[in-house]
Amino acid sequence: MRNTADEKILELADKMQKDMVKMRRDIHRHPETGWTEFRTASLVAEKLTELGYDVRTGSEAINEDYMMGRPSENVLAEAAKRAVAQGAAAEWVKKMKGGMTGVIGTMVFSQDGPTVALRFDMDANDVLETTEEGHRPYEEGFSSVNDKAMHACGHDGHTTVGLAVAAILAALRADLNGKIKLIFQPAEEGVRGAKAMVENGDVDDVDYVLGAHFGFKMKKTGSIACNVKGFLATSKYDAQFTGMPAHAGAAPEEGRNALLAAACAALNLHAISRHSAGASRINVGTLNAGSGRNVIGDKALIQFETRGANSEINNYMENEALRVLKAAADMYDVKVDIKKMGGAAGADNSQNLAQYIKNKADSLGIFDNVVTDCAFGASEDFSYFMEKVQKNGGEGAYMMVGADLAAGHHDSHFDFDEKALGYSAKILAVCAAGLLQKKDL
Amino acid sequence: MRNTADEKILELADKMQKDMVKMRRDIHRHPETGWTEFRTASLVAEKLTELGYDVRTGSEAINEDYMMGRPSENVLAEAAKRAVAQGAAAEWVKKMKGGMTGVIGTMVFSQDGPTVALRFDMDANDVLETTEEGHRPYEEGFSSVNDKAMHACGHDGHTTVGLAVAAILAALRADLNGKIKLIFQPAEEGVRGAKAMVENGDVDDVDYVLGAHFGFKMKKTGSIACNVKGFLATSKYDAQFTGMPAHAGAAPEEGRNALLAAACAALNLHAISRHSAGASRINVGTLNAGSGRNVIGDKALIQFETRGANSEINNYMENEALRVLKAAADMYDVKVDIKKMGGAAGADNSQNLAQYIKNKADSLGIFDNVVTDCAFGASEDFSYFMEKVQKNGGEGAYMMVGADLAAGHHDSHFDFDEKALGYSAKILAVCAAGLLQKKDL
Amino acid sequence: MRNTADEKILELADKMQKDMVKMRRDIHRHPETGWTEFRTASLVAEKLTELGYDVRTGSEAINEDYMMGRPSENVLAEAAKRAVAQGAAAEWVKKMKGGMTGVIGTMVFSQDGPTVALRFDMDANDVLETTEEGHRPYEEGFSSVNDKAMHACGHDGHTTVGLAVAAILAALRADLNGKIKLIFQPAEEGVRGAKAMVENGDVDDVDYVLGAHFGFKMKKTGSIACNVKGFLATSKYDAQFTGMPAHAGAAPEEGRNALLAAACAALNLHAISRHSAGASRINVGTLNAGSGRNVIGDKALIQFETRGANSEINNYMENEALRVLKAAADMYDVKVDIKKMGGAAGADNSQNLAQYIKNKADSLGIFDNVVTDCAFGASEDFSYFMEKVQKNGGEGAYMMVGADLAAGHHDSHFDFDEKALGYSAKILAVCAAGLLQKKDL
Amino acid sequence: MRNTADEKILELADKMQKDMVKMRRDIHRHPETGWTEFRTASLVAEKLTELGYDVRTGSEAINEDYMMGRPSENVLAEAAKRAVAQGAAAEWVKKMKGGMTGVIGTMVFSQDGPTVALRFDMDANDVLETTEEGHRPYEEGFSSVNDKAMHACGHDGHTTVGLAVAAILAALRADLNGKIKLIFQPAEEGVRGAKAMVENGDVDDVDYVLGAHFGFKMKKTGSIACNVKGFLATSKYDAQFTGMPAHAGAAPEEGRNALLAAACAALNLHAISRHSAGASRINVGTLNAGSGRNVIGDKALIQFETRGANSEINNYMENEALRVLKAAADMYDVKVDIKKMGGAAGADNSQNLAQYIKNKADSLGIFDNVVTDCAFGASEDFSYFMEKVQKNGGEGAYMMVGADLAAGHHDSHFDFDEKALGYSAKILAVCAAGLLQKKDL
Repeated sequence: MRNTADEKILELADKMQKDMVKMRRDIHRHPETGWTEFRTASLVAEKLTELGYDVRTGSEAINEDYMMGRPSENVLAEAAKRAVAQGAAAEWVKKMKGGMTGVIGTMVFSQDGPTVALRFDMDANDVLETTEEGHRPYEEGFSSVNDKAMHACGHDGHTTVGLAVAAILAALRADLNGKIKLIFQPAEEGVRGAKAMVENGDVDDVDYVLGAHFGFKMKKTGSIACNVKGFLATSKYDAQFTGMPAHAGAAPEEGRNALLAAACAALNLHAISRHSAGASRINVGTLNAGSGRNVIGDKALIQFETRGANSEINNYMENEALRVLKAAADMYDVKVDIKKMGGAAGADNSQNLAQYIKNKADSLGIFDNVVTDCAFGASEDFSYFMEKVQKNGGEGAYMMVGADLAAGHHDSHFDFDEKALGYSAKILAVCAAGLLQKKDL
Repeated sequence: MRNTADEKILELADKMQKDMVKMRRDIHRHPETGWTEFRTASLVAEKLTELGYDVRTGSEAINEDYMMGRPSENVLAEAAKRAVAQGAAAEWVKKMKGGMTGVIGTMVFSQDGPTVALRFDMDANDVLETTEEGHRPYEEGFSSVNDKAMHACGHDGHTTVGLAVAAILAALRADLNGKIKLIFQPAEEGVRGAKAMVENGDVDDVDYVLGAHFGFKMKKTGSIACNVKGFLATSKYDAQFTGMPAHAGAAPEEGRNALLAAACAALNLHAISRHSAGASRINVGTLNAGSGRNVIGDKALIQFETRGANSEINNYMENEALRVLKAAADMYDVKVDIKKMGGAAGADNSQNLAQYIKNKADSLGIFDNVVTDCAFGASEDFSYFMEKVQKNGGEGAYMMVGADLAAGHHDSHFDFDEKALGYSAKILAVCAAGLLQKKDL
Repeated sequence: MRNTADEKILELADKMQKDMVKMRRDIHRHPETGWTEFRTASLVAEKLTELGYDVRTGSEAINEDYMMGRPSENVLAEAAKRAVAQGAAAEWVKKMKGGMTGVIGTMVFSQDGPTVALRFDMDANDVLETTEEGHRPYEEGFSSVNDKAMHACGHDGHTTVGLAVAAILAALRADLNGKIKLIFQPAEEGVRGAKAMVENGDVDDVDYVLGAHFGFKMKKTGSIACNVKGFLATSKYDAQFTGMPAHAGAAPEEGRNALLAAACAALNLHAISRHSAGASRINVGTLNAGSGRNVIGDKALIQFETRGANSEINNYMENEALRVLKAAADMYDVKVDIKKMGGAAGADNSQNLAQYIKNKADSLGIFDNVVTDCAFGASEDFSYFMEKVQKNGGEGAYMMVGADLAAGHHDSHFDFDEKALGYSAKILAVCAAGLLQKKDL
Repeated sequence: MRNTADEKILELADKMQKDMVKMRRDIHRHPETGWTEFRTASLVAEKLTELGYDVRTGSEAINEDYMMGRPSENVLAEAAKRAVAQGAAAEWVKKMKGGMTGVIGTMVFSQDGPTVALRFDMDANDVLETTEEGHRPYEEGFSSVNDKAMHACGHDGHTTVGLAVAAILAALRADLNGKIKLIFQPAEEGVRGAKAMVENGDVDDVDYVLGAHFGFKMKKTGSIACNVKGFLATSKYDAQFTGMPAHAGAAPEEGRNALLAAACAALNLHAISRHSAGASRINVGTLNAGSGRNVIGDKALIQFETRGANSEINNYMENEALRVLKAAADMYDVKVDIKKMGGAAGADNSQNLAQYIKNKADSLGIFDNVVTDCAFGASEDFSYFMEKVQKNGGEGAYMMVGADLAAGHHDSHFDFDEKALGYSAKILAVCAAGLLQKKDL
């Protein structure tokens, strides 16, 4: 059964639908990849400020020491410049210097109550958007204008939903207790951004944290999965091998072969033993080595990732992998420089909170299909927020909001049914408002 | 003791020194890499024609079926256009369509006699010429104007010497018997061009073939090595592996891993057994695989080469390598497409002819240091010409003409003492004229 | 609540305890490894005959075409001879020629009813029994007299229990309906024997099949687990590589290196991709290659196994492994001969039947601890019987009967609390009798 | 032209022919492998003593610290016992305790003169002698009575020749100056024994050292090669990897996989880069790993060898190999214990001395075919003696004395024409006597 607040939320969300579509398309048109979301984050900061939120960004939102996979200064500077050129407010962009593009909007309500956090991710993919016939963003003129970047995972929608929820909760503020934190995270792709926000203490005071993703395994608009399971813990690494070049005909023994070290590492990484306690994964996704056919290859870069059904298994994979890399370097007498580029914890929804979402979804009566369990089988760094809140005695849950998709995630033809924006705003606002109305769940 | 003809040659060469420098610098400024020597070859064709040689180029000089490592049509078309823009005669460029940039100049003398061939290579390297202080070509304004190409091996000099010798022999024509063939070869780098000229029958009628290289192990102007030994036979290959991508977390078993196939190939190629009959080499010089960290790598390209103290050993290495590549592809259930990109035979100078050169070098009295044996330890596709002539009962030899060098071959700082142009023109013209004066050596 | 028949069974079993201990020790003293259980099987055949069972053995019990990992004729002949020398009846041994040592005892009761099968395994391990102080079999004079064989897994007890149950059911025959089949299986170690019995049709007519194992994860006498889960499907293979020897100094290129082929296979087998649908395993357990330090190794044998959470995953591992082996052989131009040495299906208990066992165990009131679920995490070829019966619409279940253990299974110090013999005989006889008293469960 | 001494030597040798055959057959019948030559060495010690030589053995002849590949104490004790049982004098055997079976016989002549050493090797091979028809030792009753040992390389003949030369030189003592040292070396197979004698200072005072081998590339009785070239330097190693076993199904991640470490080592050892300065070799000749199919292999032993055209190249191979082994162990988190089991230097005959042998061989007029150069292409630890003497300013040379062979060296059908005994005794005695007659060569 819907309560009065729920009714109000549904109504507000319906009114915002057109604006949401407009905003989503604006963001879609100006995609920004991880740690370069200067324009998107500025837009968010501006809107949250307008709505009366207390807004933090830059080093107030991000612990710089934990930024993984940050682009070079050059790339960041170019992106910041482009953001301003594309309409971002220069003062906000300045605060985000160095790619610290996370934004947190906080609103404290009049009475005591729980602290509820919602998390939205803002970054785009390294994908070149298709210009094929039938691709709606292209045909309707909102496809990417930024080179080699595209919102191919729906984060444009997530950001939009976040701002809609911000507006709804602000409108309901008189009826709410406690505190709401709206967390807009950069660099979810490559699972890089969450860690730097968690390590900044952004959810240390949070009792409930919620996250949501469009589509994925819920490929019909109007469906929802309330208890997403099987987040794989993951770590992302780059390993750069450096040896010594030599003429392969005249003096091969003078070379130190980084190419072979990398090849040897790749094979032996994949031979790391399976773990009896649950799923594990390893993938050397790229290997680029050598400079010329007749030169002993003195440089090699591999990009790889480990995964595990839980953080313990992923740690096992990680430790094995690091040892293998060092041994492979020793094997060919070369150096290896290993850099962590990303990571996500394994996690499970708090069952209580997942059940709460399910009850809300059922009671709203707007979903055609309310699923309880849904296996994720992939990685999301929302897990870091959830893990931290759960460790502090709080609860966390992640849901999947159904959306008709034009193509799979990360595909250059990706697009989603914009009606899903409304569904997502509604369930998130309803859940947040519900949690903020009582001290206890 | 010099004879009259020798005296005349020395005198003519000395007179040409200034022109040689000028021409060498012009060629240096307009470097063209393998199979794109449209401007250089047009210049050669034009000059030879002017001197009264019968000139063949394009499909008259090159057997297209044996062109290894030919660039794409696009690249060839761009290069041809650039050549014309840089002053090449359009009609010559047209004849060389498809990169068939070899040129042969033939002159038949009045009386019967042997057919003598001299071979000169014309191509530049894939090297970006330095703009550091102290690099003479840069400081004196003749450094490369063509992107990513540089004469860093002295072929600009070789081509210049070839034209000087052409002029000298034309001037002496009344005193000569038999026939001279001046062979200007494209694509020596990567040992690609000789095969296509040999397979066109270009030296089928040749009794003596001579080649020369500046510098290398003779690093002093005024020195010469007459019996270069230890040409390594070599083969150059590209192997492209094609598998199937898959999400490394969600469905790794659906992938077919081309990256691992390539890594496995690289290791096992280097483990090919040594050969008891002499030196062998293998080098996987580059390996580039995969598209993203979390995707099973479905594409991988390796560039490798084999070498052997003689063609038999190189064949052994080649056969082993091809089997290893196929097995590595099978190992990971991927496809492999193997393309031969270049090759050179092993070869040894005809001892008689090498001795003849030595006698000439001694008798001229212009060299400070006349060395007999000199170990090459590298590969040169001049070996194909030599092998063919020797098989037909003729003789071949390769000499090294000393030159002070600014840096090693293929280095972006490479430059050589232009006095060496004269030394090279003299010894080659003297040897050729000598051979053309009598039916028997 | 126990019924009358149950009471009778408990009483009979208690009376047999001493005889069971005696028989178990006799079998323990004369261990026979897979397919050589001539003495044990003869003993079984004799006792079953005495008890009035219809007895089949040799080719009547075993489909010879499916015997995996059968020893050489020589080994079998020696074992048969030894069995007779140790008291086996020569006529039974003769029937078991070729190692066909399976035995089936059938008894048909007066009224129609279900066909119930119980399966017991008889083989010993390739383990040298310890003679250390404190090892009861050694101290009490019943340790192995057969070289390199020991009952280190409790199959001596299983066989004993089987004969006790045979006696109990024979004693109760007037009260039973349907048909009982007591299956005594050879070669469970290495999961080799079940397949050959299933393929002989031994359980084609069976409605319920039960199996049991001592100890394992139930390490306390008086405990029982009724629903053993997580049988891993498995396949066991030997791969023999054959190359060509050569002197490693004088002519290494003439060798064909089976040692390197096997090493390459081992690494790449372990690099087979994980499967997203569940647990997989691969293990190259032994690799023995080469004959001398200075000879290219021309022979190599690897013994390996694959496993999967279910048969489909195991098939995936198996197919990948076979391809890898062939490719590794090709890689080094050697031959590989691959032989299947064993296998077991993945399986799950019929939940209905497992619940029935649990109810029986609870109602008997003799167990201190009745556990429902118990993860096996290993392989047992009982799964073949279970799979076949389930496919035909019947039910199967496997239980673990607790026993205090002196050491882990397959350890040379293994021994178990003989009180467990009684517990096992009781629960199996009670379940079988229960099933045979009614047409429907 | 033969001189008087030469004539006398030829005559003496002819008289000894029958005794040589007898002795060779006695030694052939009682083969003793490396460091267990108790009977053979005792026989040598006894005969040398009888002939008036000063005899040293045991720790007087061997530096125990440099004994490579010494068998276990147990094996040595058994061999010593067997030697006595087969007729060895117990007091000599006792002196050779611990396998120090080298023997040196020294005789000082009346006048000053050079010190000349001859070296003979005494050990047999780990070969089971054939009992096929046509194998003369078997048919004539002198084939091996010792299990798994056979003189399949002719060292029985070498020892015999050594004693014949001892007798000849003793007979000529009045005519000789300086000092003769007859060195009987153990454990030449596996190139283990020479180092321990050289490091004992056994040739520190030597001016000329000579060695000889039957057969090999000189397969005709009556031929001789005076300048054996191309000794490959070599090193022999055993590497024992120790990991941790674990159940491959239940807990593979708990294992530490020595089998994979060894497989990885094998592949990467063979991938060590070739050396541009000359021939190199690597061979992993044996790899034995693992205990059972379903256990993570916790033990692995590899036996390998490196070689090089000279000691420097072999050192390069050795250093690379040791690094690879350690890295392979690290790769799988296991330990590796590396033991040097043998080694030989690269070496070249002193040209002066080789010429001297040739002159003698020519002048004697007994050889049908006197060859100068002969490429060895293998390893012999005589090189250590030669290297040491040459370093001290002396000279060394190694010759090959032709012999008709029944089969190749190390073959179980090996046998040689016993006429070769005489040829060898003659040339060695003649050369030694010649050197001992004058102070200067």
